[in-house]
Amino acid sequence: MEEKPNYHMSSAEFRQWGYKTIDWIADYLENVEKLPVLSQVEPGDIRAKLPNSPPQQGESFAEIFKDIDEIIVPGLTNWQSPNFFAFFPTGISAPSILGELLSAGLGVQGMLWATSPACTELETHVLDWLVDMLELPLHFKSSETGGGVIQDSASSASLVALVAAREQTTADISKLVAYTSTQAHSSIEKGFKIAGISSENLRLIEVDGNYAICPDALQQCIEQDIAAGLTPFYLAATVGTTSSNAIDPLPELGAIAQKYNIWFHVDGAMSGTAALCPEYRWIHQGLELADSYCFNPHKWMLTNFDCTCFYVRDRSKLTQSLSIVPEYLKNQASESGAVIDYRDWQIPLGRRFRSLKLWFVIRHYGIEGLQHYVRKHIALAQEFAEWVKSDSRFELAVNPPLNLVCFRHKGGDRINQTIVNSLNSSGKIYLISTKLDQKVTLRMSIGQATTEKLNVQQAWELICQIADAN
Amino acid sequence: MEEKPNYHMSSAEFRQWGYKTIDWIADYLENVEKLPVLSQVEPGDIRAKLPNSPPQQGESFAEIFKDIDEIIVPGLTNWQSPNFFAFFPTGISAPSILGELLSAGLGVQGMLWATSPACTELETHVLDWLVDMLELPLHFKSSETGGGVIQDSASSASLVALVAAREQTTADISKLVAYTSTQAHSSIEKGFKIAGISSENLRLIEVDGNYAICPDALQQCIEQDIAAGLTPFYLAATVGTTSSNAIDPLPELGAIAQKYNIWFHVDGAMSGTAALCPEYRWIHQGLELADSYCFNPHKWMLTNFDCTCFYVRDRSKLTQSLSIVPEYLKNQASESGAVIDYRDWQIPLGRRFRSLKLWFVIRHYGIEGLQHYVRKHIALAQEFAEWVKSDSRFELAVNPPLNLVCFRHKGGDRINQTIVNSLNSSGKIYLISTKLDQKVTLRMSIGQATTEKLNVQQAWELICQIADAN
Repeated sequence: MEEKPNYHMSSAEFRQWGYKTIDWIADYLENVEKLPVLSQVEPGDIRAKLPNSPPQQGESFAEIFKDIDEIIVPGLTNWQSPNFFAFFPTGISAPSILGELLSAGLGVQGMLWATSPACTELETHVLDWLVDMLELPLHFKSSETGGGVIQDSASSASLVALVAAREQTTADISKLVAYTSTQAHSSIEKGFKIAGISSENLRLIEVDGNYAICPDALQQCIEQDIAAGLTPFYLAATVGTTSSNAIDPLPELGAIAQKYNIWFHVDGAMSGTAALCPEYRWIHQGLELADSYCFNPHKWMLTNFDCTCFYVRDRSKLTQSLSIVPEYLKNQASESGAVIDYRDWQIPLGRRFRSLKLWFVIRHYGIEGLQHYVRKHIALAQEFAEWVKSDSRFELAVNPPLNLVCFRHKGGDRINQTIVNSLNSSGKIYLISTKLDQKVTLRMSIGQATTEKLNVQQAWELICQIADAN
Repeated sequence: MEEKPNYHMSSAEFRQWGYKTIDWIADYLENVEKLPVLSQVEPGDIRAKLPNSPPQQGESFAEIFKDIDEIIVPGLTNWQSPNFFAFFPTGISAPSILGELLSAGLGVQGMLWATSPACTELETHVLDWLVDMLELPLHFKSSETGGGVIQDSASSASLVALVAAREQTTADISKLVAYTSTQAHSSIEKGFKIAGISSENLRLIEVDGNYAICPDALQQCIEQDIAAGLTPFYLAATVGTTSSNAIDPLPELGAIAQKYNIWFHVDGAMSGTAALCPEYRWIHQGLELADSYCFNPHKWMLTNFDCTCFYVRDRSKLTQSLSIVPEYLKNQASESGAVIDYRDWQIPLGRRFRSLKLWFVIRHYGIEGLQHYVRKHIALAQEFAEWVKSDSRFELAVNPPLNLVCFRHKGGDRINQTIVNSLNSSGKIYLISTKLDQKVTLRMSIGQATTEKLNVQQAWELICQIADAN
């Protein structure tokens, strides 16, 4: 064989296979409803189809595409199916996909302002836009003391908030105590482990009948800890918990945080997006007391993962905690103090140009288009909740505040578990269960980009059929 | 205006704008050499061109593309220019861009095996391939006690290694001490801050004339710490430091780590890729003693950021440190123990289908094509080093082991700083300086996908011209 001078794809080949990939995605999304929602493969099935050794010589893209169809697709759990009701939605949309594509094509690093000023400035700008779009407290704007940054996930956002909070304290790390609810996301506890604070020092405060944190119980616990010589330093509240979409009472919690000088972090991972609509902005009442906040456009705002918008009241507290400046990262722009270097706002050094996809989504849909989807999903969820209420075999676990309906068959854990397992193994829909008050509870999360009323109706019919048969 | 029933792009529109985006990227990459490498905008220039408010109604993609050309492109530092010699390369390639595109189009979450089995199994498989491709220790394979996972960055990889190491200890956190060299990447110290360990407990061990860590100094420091009642627990070595590409002596360091029962992490962020070629595998001599290791295909292996391959000797130590299982993440596959849930191997919960791009790169280029680029870049760097040596005004700071040439004008810091500033403000090439032995030192990092000998020659001519004029 003749020696190859250059193994790159030519520009013409890139165009050809690029179009092909675009077409493949368009076809996939047009047909995803026909695929099983939960992948039906067994452990090891995918690997068994892959060659043991990597190729010595390059292969054609035609071969790669064949394997995508034959090997990869059967191993997908299809999050973009309109019949996906598990966990929380993971948003994608055409403009967002193209934003990711453009970011990949540019291949720039946004670790410092100087390493691509547009990457930093567009991010700051779009995150400022979102303060207005959600009517968030103004101190989260970059023109004030705060500012926003894109993190990969709410997990990382709560971790950097925790680290910033910890760095404000002078007490020994073993004396620091933090507070969240029994219903908070597992990432809060995981962040604790990573940040070196014993999970014994994380207090899981009891919740009320709606699974929202009890301010009185919090206050009592703080007083006890202080009396025991400990230092309360961090409180994480949730706007829309994972299990039941509970909304913690931010005004009361914020007042307590202020009284005891505790960093107040609010996690609005999925539900924060609802504040795009004025009628749902009550979920953020009290947010003006928060030191930090995040919500995930990658959940319910049609934007590809990863895109968590994280805001801080005082950006200097964040950068003081995370900035380390070796010689090779010094540059004139950074030293002038006139720019943001987002590497100091996050755990990794490198960063992709993630604001492109968010910018594309906001510009393509407009505020109006994004509000449309929030309203649509909430309306569908409320309608589903009515069906549950009107069926004597079922009950709501809580009244759904937004787009997540938690309900159960009154016949006990076993029948509820049977319903989940049957639904998921059918491949027709995917939903998951949780436990509320120790009882298996079904979660109907409605938020995929293409979910229509018919999909929700079919899901309910399927649930009723399984209930009938058991 | 008539009410819009659906704000999504139609499938036909997605295809149209998808092709357009592909073409835009192909054109950009064909012409990137003509753009200034370092963006020449001033702080605030980009934001000044963006509207203060987000649009109420959606805008057309034609308008968006206009703004990309007019607003975004001038604000880019063009990492994909063949004249980019700063920091480290950030690899992209046509197959990798298409892998990112496909991942975005599928929009699946790989947090659990069940949430897309192909996402987990392809990742495990390709990371096993890379063990063979780089001839890494076999215990890093998933069929043994270890395994590999894609992290966003070497920063996150060293942080999770640090957390796993910390969780193996029983000593109070204030008594834990760790070791790395004065030349280690800033992310090691940043990881320390995040993990709640005082930076006073991080020992920066002195280096030898090649800027590699001195084993004797390390051993002495450990003995002193033990005598002082402290508990050594973590040692981070580097294969190819950022400032000078120094390669720490892994066999000696590993022996010390074993003797004192210290977690031994090796960071091969850029340089690890060299081990694709048998003649450069000496860089990993002693790696069989490491507990964890990472290298970044997103630097020097033509793969888009983010793609750090992180390996552990004993995966159970990682998952014990990072696993928290709430009710809503329980599922039959996880409970069977037959699958990997990568959420327990990383900080965030969510994860993209990042192995697609790595799979595409390996399959498109083949081992042969990837080796070609390693050899080419090293040859260019070695040739550049010869030019430096043969010019009496300049000197090498160290003999370059691979593809990074550290050199300086003998005339002192000021002239070297002038050279860097003049080069970068010319827009013709971009390189950065560091300090070695307190002296400003220029770093010529050769590793971009399209860098040819002519680019390196032009860079050297430019450097000489500036030296002539000063």
